[in-house]
Amino acid sequence: MVALKVFGQPACTDVARVLTCLFEKNLEFELIRTDTFKGERKVPEFLRLQDPSGLVTFKDRDLTLVDSREICRHISVKYLDKGNKTLFGTGVLERALIEQWLQAEAVTFEPASSTLVFHLAIAAPLGLQTDQSLIEKNEKKLARVLDVYESRLGENEYLAGDEFTLADLSHLPNAHYLVNKTERGRKLFTSRKNVERWWNAISSRPSWKQVVQMQ
Amino acid sequence: MVALKVFGQPACTDVARVLTCLFEKNLEFELIRTDTFKGERKVPEFLRLQDPSGLVTFKDRDLTLVDSREICRHISVKYLDKGNKTLFGTGVLERALIEQWLQAEAVTFEPASSTLVFHLAIAAPLGLQTDQSLIEKNEKKLARVLDVYESRLGENEYLAGDEFTLADLSHLPNAHYLVNKTERGRKLFTSRKNVERWWNAISSRPSWKQVVQMQ
Repeated sequence: MVALKVFGQPACTDVARVLTCLFEKNLEFELIRTDTFKGERKVPEFLRLQDPSGLVTFKDRDLTLVDSREICRHISVKYLDKGNKTLFGTGVLERALIEQWLQAEAVTFEPASSTLVFHLAIAAPLGLQTDQSLIEKNEKKLARVLDVYESRLGENEYLAGDEFTLADLSHLPNAHYLVNKTERGRKLFTSRKNVERWWNAISSRPSWKQVVQMQ
Repeated sequence: MVALKVFGQPACTDVARVLTCLFEKNLEFELIRTDTFKGERKVPEFLRLQDPSGLVTFKDRDLTLVDSREICRHISVKYLDKGNKTLFGTGVLERALIEQWLQAEAVTFEPASSTLVFHLAIAAPLGLQTDQSLIEKNEKKLARVLDVYESRLGENEYLAGDEFTLADLSHLPNAHYLVNKTERGRKLFTSRKNVERWWNAISSRPSWKQVVQMQ
């Protein structure tokens, strides 16, 4: 019996984050996807992105977790010696630094980038009313976040040092939609040379490529 | 809450049969798929075709069924007035005729066609040893079955009369692999003009096209 189970759609950013972590750790797991069909019409994947049922549920035997970053921490700590062993650092100081950038992602990068993805890549193509002032406000917010990253990535190859860690991994799902589904999002990345180099490095990892294929 | 649930992979013939029936009946249902990943390697779908876990499980509230043709009968009878209302006939005589061809499919078409699909489309490309005498034996068996169909389809547009019914539907999953994945299988169909016409008609139904897209 497989101990680790993920319930959710790979197109959802929280699910994608957990899958990438599991692939980095080279762990065996089951992915359980539920799709609802009404006649031949299927609810499109991207509409689930903002849907509470689009969240992830993770089970490790009797333990159930629902926060994607918490799930990644759990996997990295419990299965320290599997696959990528430096994903969450090996010492206390190292882990504190990863945690700092992991929280920066959750608190600053995520809200701004997901608002932009929703308005530019989902609402606009569906012909829904988009709030231009909200788009501009979040574009500016994200630009400020990426300016900090640009400077940081001038000193180190990755956010928490010279290794790819959970701090970088956690950016992949939203950054992917931003760079590949929105023109304005792509420009925010390509106009900053260190950010662009970093994005190219993290998005070409086999773990992430596998998730994109599943989406 | 959605009452109807299907557990399985659309690439499995038994699952595909049930999905096609649900689409014909225009019913709302949930499809629950479980994929097992070991690191980045996923067990390929087609290997599940001959795998007992590749079978279908169907739930209609508290009722659980596992035989795909039995599930199709249940759906067609219980939801008689939904979607395609003539799928399992409307009178006793009509239903008996559909049942006769449905059983012909299960007892003669299915064993020969699935053996051919396994050896020609799955084992051969994987470089596994294939049993030539078994292939020829089943090719002959299937030719005899299709000769009967050719004659029958000279009298009627579909197997059980002039309407598309469960008897035709039940052939779709195996016939699809046979025609589209094996050269010898395709020839068995295209060399018989009524069988070819019939195949073109049944395989272009929106319900089936949707299943192929999901595979």
